[in-house]
Amino acid sequence: MQTLNLDLGDRSYPIYIGQGLLQQPELLTAHVQGRSCVTVSNETIAPLYLEAINAALKSYKQSAVILPDGEAYKNLDTLNQIYTHLLEVKADRKTTLIALGGGVVGDMTGFAAASYQRGVNFIQVPTTLLAMVDSSVGGKTGVNHALGKNMIGAFHQPQAVIIDTHTLSTLADRELSAGIAEVIKYGLIRDPAFLTWLDANMAALLAREPEALSYAIYRSCQHKAEVVASDERESGQRALLNLGHTFGHAIEAAMGYGQWLHGEAVATGMVMAAELSAQMAWLGPADVSYIRQLLERAHLPVDPPPTMTGDDFMRYMSVDKKVLDGSLRLILMKSLGESIVTADFDADALKRVLHREL
Amino acid sequence: MQTLNLDLGDRSYPIYIGQGLLQQPELLTAHVQGRSCVTVSNETIAPLYLEAINAALKSYKQSAVILPDGEAYKNLDTLNQIYTHLLEVKADRKTTLIALGGGVVGDMTGFAAASYQRGVNFIQVPTTLLAMVDSSVGGKTGVNHALGKNMIGAFHQPQAVIIDTHTLSTLADRELSAGIAEVIKYGLIRDPAFLTWLDANMAALLAREPEALSYAIYRSCQHKAEVVASDERESGQRALLNLGHTFGHAIEAAMGYGQWLHGEAVATGMVMAAELSAQMAWLGPADVSYIRQLLERAHLPVDPPPTMTGDDFMRYMSVDKKVLDGSLRLILMKSLGESIVTADFDADALKRVLHREL
Repeated sequence: MQTLNLDLGDRSYPIYIGQGLLQQPELLTAHVQGRSCVTVSNETIAPLYLEAINAALKSYKQSAVILPDGEAYKNLDTLNQIYTHLLEVKADRKTTLIALGGGVVGDMTGFAAASYQRGVNFIQVPTTLLAMVDSSVGGKTGVNHALGKNMIGAFHQPQAVIIDTHTLSTLADRELSAGIAEVIKYGLIRDPAFLTWLDANMAALLAREPEALSYAIYRSCQHKAEVVASDERESGQRALLNLGHTFGHAIEAAMGYGQWLHGEAVATGMVMAAELSAQMAWLGPADVSYIRQLLERAHLPVDPPPTMTGDDFMRYMSVDKKVLDGSLRLILMKSLGESIVTADFDADALKRVLHREL
Repeated sequence: MQTLNLDLGDRSYPIYIGQGLLQQPELLTAHVQGRSCVTVSNETIAPLYLEAINAALKSYKQSAVILPDGEAYKNLDTLNQIYTHLLEVKADRKTTLIALGGGVVGDMTGFAAASYQRGVNFIQVPTTLLAMVDSSVGGKTGVNHALGKNMIGAFHQPQAVIIDTHTLSTLADRELSAGIAEVIKYGLIRDPAFLTWLDANMAALLAREPEALSYAIYRSCQHKAEVVASDERESGQRALLNLGHTFGHAIEAAMGYGQWLHGEAVATGMVMAAELSAQMAWLGPADVSYIRQLLERAHLPVDPPPTMTGDDFMRYMSVDKKVLDGSLRLILMKSLGESIVTADFDADALKRVLHREL
C-alpha cells in the first residue's frame, strides 16, 4: 500500500492506494468518528463491493442507499433520495457517509455530506479509474442542473480516500478509457515525463497490468494533491485541472448527461484545447497529432459529436464557471506538458475550433 | 445608523442598523464585488422594497427572482427556482445575491449562494423583525425537508447585513410578535437585564416605537454576533441560541410548515423548556409564570397545539440535529437569563412536559 497526504492544515487527509484495501477494515474505521455510517452506492457497484464495506463496519450502526447508475441521475432529485434516507435512519451530525462508486456517487455523496445538517463527515471509496485519479480527491462535490454541469455544489473535503485497485478488475472497458483521459490530463498540464511514460505504457494500462495501473494512479493523485494543497478553492492554479473540461462540459450537456462519459468528453475537449493552442502557435501540428494519437490509443473519442454545431458549443460554454464577469477563460497549452489559464486567446481562432474550420 | 461587527477573521462583516438604510445605496454597493447582482425576494416584500434595491444597484447588471411567500416553500423545489434563474441570467462566480425578505428568503438565498457554482457572495437585507434579530446574522443557511426542518444547508456568511428598521412599518402584527419571541430568547439565554428591559418596554415594542425597536434589534444582534464569533460552527455555546427550538421545530413540522410561524413555535418551545427546567428544580414556578406572561404580552402562543400528542413530539424530536449519537441534548434554563446545553435531564420529566402531565 502507498499513502499520499493531501496537506490542507487541519483538514488534511490520507489517500491510500493498493490492492485489496477493502479487506483492511481499519483503513475505514480509523476515519469514522461517530457510531453510525451510511454507505451511498449505485446498482452496479453495490452488488460487487457493498458486502466488503458492511463487513468492515459491522460494529457500527449502518445502512445503505443504492442509487441508479449514471451521470443522468446526478441531480437534485437523486440527492434528495440520499437526504430522505439519512432522515429515515435518523442520521445525526456525527454520522459518516461512505461514497462507494465512481465520480457520480462520490460527487453526490460529498455534497450530501456537505449539506446534511450543514455538514457531516464522509469517506471516498472510488471504484472507477476516473474517480480514483480525479474526482475523489480534492473536495469538489455537487450535482448537475439541467442548464449546466456541476453548477450546484460545495467544497467539502473527505476524511480519507481509500483506493482499492482491485475494484478496477470489474470496470467496463469504456470506463477504464474514460479514466485514462484524466490520467493523460496530468501529463498535459504539468508533467512531460509522465506523458512519455503513458506513451510507452498505454498497452499495459489497457491490459490492466496492476503495476502500470498503480503507478498511473499514484502519480495522478500526487499531482492532484499538490495542486489542491496549493489552491483549494480554485482561485488560481487549480483551474488547470479543468483542461478540456469547458469544451467537454458543453458536449456532455448538449448530448444529454450520460451519453458521453465525462472522461470521453474531456478527451475530445483536450484535443480542442490543443487545436486552439496550435491556432495560437503555442503548440505545433506534431504536438496536436501526438495528443490525438495518445488519446485514440486509449480508445477515446477525439472529435466532437457531428450533431453539435459551433453555436451549440458557444451556448453551453457561455455559462461555464470559468466565465468571470463575462470573459471566457480557457485552459490552453503553452507546450506539451505545460498548460495555462488564460482569457488571452484569439476569439476568431476559438470560433474556428468550435465550427471545425481548421 | 449603528454598526456592529461580526468578528470572524477574514470572513468578518458589518451589521448596519438604522431607519431608511435602503435609501443609502453605498451600504449595498460597498459589499458587491463583481458587476452583477441577483436579488431574491418574495411576492409580499418585492412590491414594497425591490424598487429601492433596483435603484441602489442601477449601475450593475441585475435581475430578481420572486418566490412565493411562506415557510411552506422553503424547500429544494423553490431553491431550484433560484438556481434556474441564476443559470438563465448566466450568473457567474462573481455574482452577488441579495436576500430581500424574512428568514425564509434569507435562509434559501444564503444556501443558494453557498452552493451555486460552489459558492458566491451574498448580502442580507432582512425585512422582518425575526430575520433582523436572528436568521440574517451568523451564516446559517438552508431549506427544510419533509422529514425535518433546516435539515439541508450550509454555514455561509454574508458580506454584510443591512437592517432598515423602516421596513418594519409594513410588517404584519403576527410577524412582529414572532420576531419578539427571538428577542426575548436572548434575554432568557444570557441577559437578565435585557429581560427586565423587555418587561418594561413590551407595549412600546408592540406600538412599534422606533427607539424601542432599534434598541431591541441592536441588543439582539450584539448577542448574536458575540455568540457566533465565539463558536461559528456550533460546537458548543452557539447551541444556546436554539433555546425552545427543539420543541418548536417539532410543532412546526407536525402542524405543517407555515401553520405556526417559527417565532410562535419557539415561544411555546421556550415555555416547554422552562417547564422542564422547573421539573429539574432549576427554575421556580414564579419564573415559569414570568416567562409565560412576558410571551403572552407579546401576543405569542404559550401552549402546544391541542392536536399534538406527546408521542408526536418525541417522533419529531428524535431526528433533531441536537441528537448526537442517539442522546437528546436540550437547551434548559439554570435561572432566568442563564441557559445551558445539556443531556443531563430526567427523561420522565421530559415525558411529563410532552404529555402535558404537569
